[in-house]
Amino acid sequence: MNEGVEWALHSCLNLAWIGGERAVTAARLAAYHDLPAAYLNKQLQALVRAGVLVSVSGPKGGFRLARSLERITLMDVVTAIEGPDEAFRCTEIRAHGPSGGGDGKAPAVECAIAGAMGRAELAWRRELAARTLDDVRLQAERQAPGAPDRVRRWFAGT
Amino acid sequence: MNEGVEWALHSCLNLAWIGGERAVTAARLAAYHDLPAAYLNKQLQALVRAGVLVSVSGPKGGFRLARSLERITLMDVVTAIEGPDEAFRCTEIRAHGPSGGGDGKAPAVECAIAGAMGRAELAWRRELAARTLDDVRLQAERQAPGAPDRVRRWFAGT
Repeated sequence: MNEGVEWALHSCLNLAWIGGERAVTAARLAAYHDLPAAYLNKQLQALVRAGVLVSVSGPKGGFRLARSLERITLMDVVTAIEGPDEAFRCTEIRAHGPSGGGDGKAPAVECAIAGAMGRAELAWRRELAARTLDDVRLQAERQAPGAPDRVRRWFAGT
Repeated sequence: MNEGVEWALHSCLNLAWIGGERAVTAARLAAYHDLPAAYLNKQLQALVRAGVLVSVSGPKGGFRLARSLERITLMDVVTAIEGPDEAFRCTEIRAHGPSGGGDGKAPAVECAIAGAMGRAELAWRRELAARTLDDVRLQAERQAPGAPDRVRRWFAGT
């Protein structure tokens, strides 16, 4: 999985802690975790296209959350960064070579391998879709009670 | 996910249908689905290292199953091809830049983001580990009753 998923998730939490109204540049969000700004900017743009963030232009421009963390799931962020494709991509090798009927077409029935791999992936997606970024924020604040204040102070001072 | 996972799973089913004792070369296994033999060979070698296949040398050499399909899970094959790493790799960006304490060390408590992503991945791994290749074979034979005979006939004739 692209490391941008980790960066995107942390940046969403940071934006929530900073507060909803203020837009923050990719450069500042990147600086807080010492990340490459241009590459983080690419991930943030993907979150904008997915409707997770809003991009604000102008001198006070940057990024802010498009909706509250309760309405953003882990799945939203993973899909925004990784794309919608399944991790296991069935290329229907059943259709190729002597295993196929010679017409290059796969059998009409689903491949049992693709089915089993797909069910496992569904379990993963179901977990990601069931967890909102607000669940993650609550857990983060339980584990690191000083985090929100530290974020707020640092971004206020810059 | 590497397309080698799909190839490896189909090759294991084909080896089971061909019959346990006979070793089959990577070239023949590849030809059946019109796959690049050298690249399939790499995946089959990975399955040997994982104890899923046995490599037999000599003029009648090739690959055969190291154990019955009941004792090979989807997880075994995925791990053999993809490696044991988590799909989501936490790089502890909490430790970097102003977000860290300045000592480059991550907080001792688990990151809530890594925890949530890890739980979703566990759901996926649990599904993969609960499904044996024999479950998949049974399903494949229900969906394509002619497959075992077709495989056996083609490999017997070559």
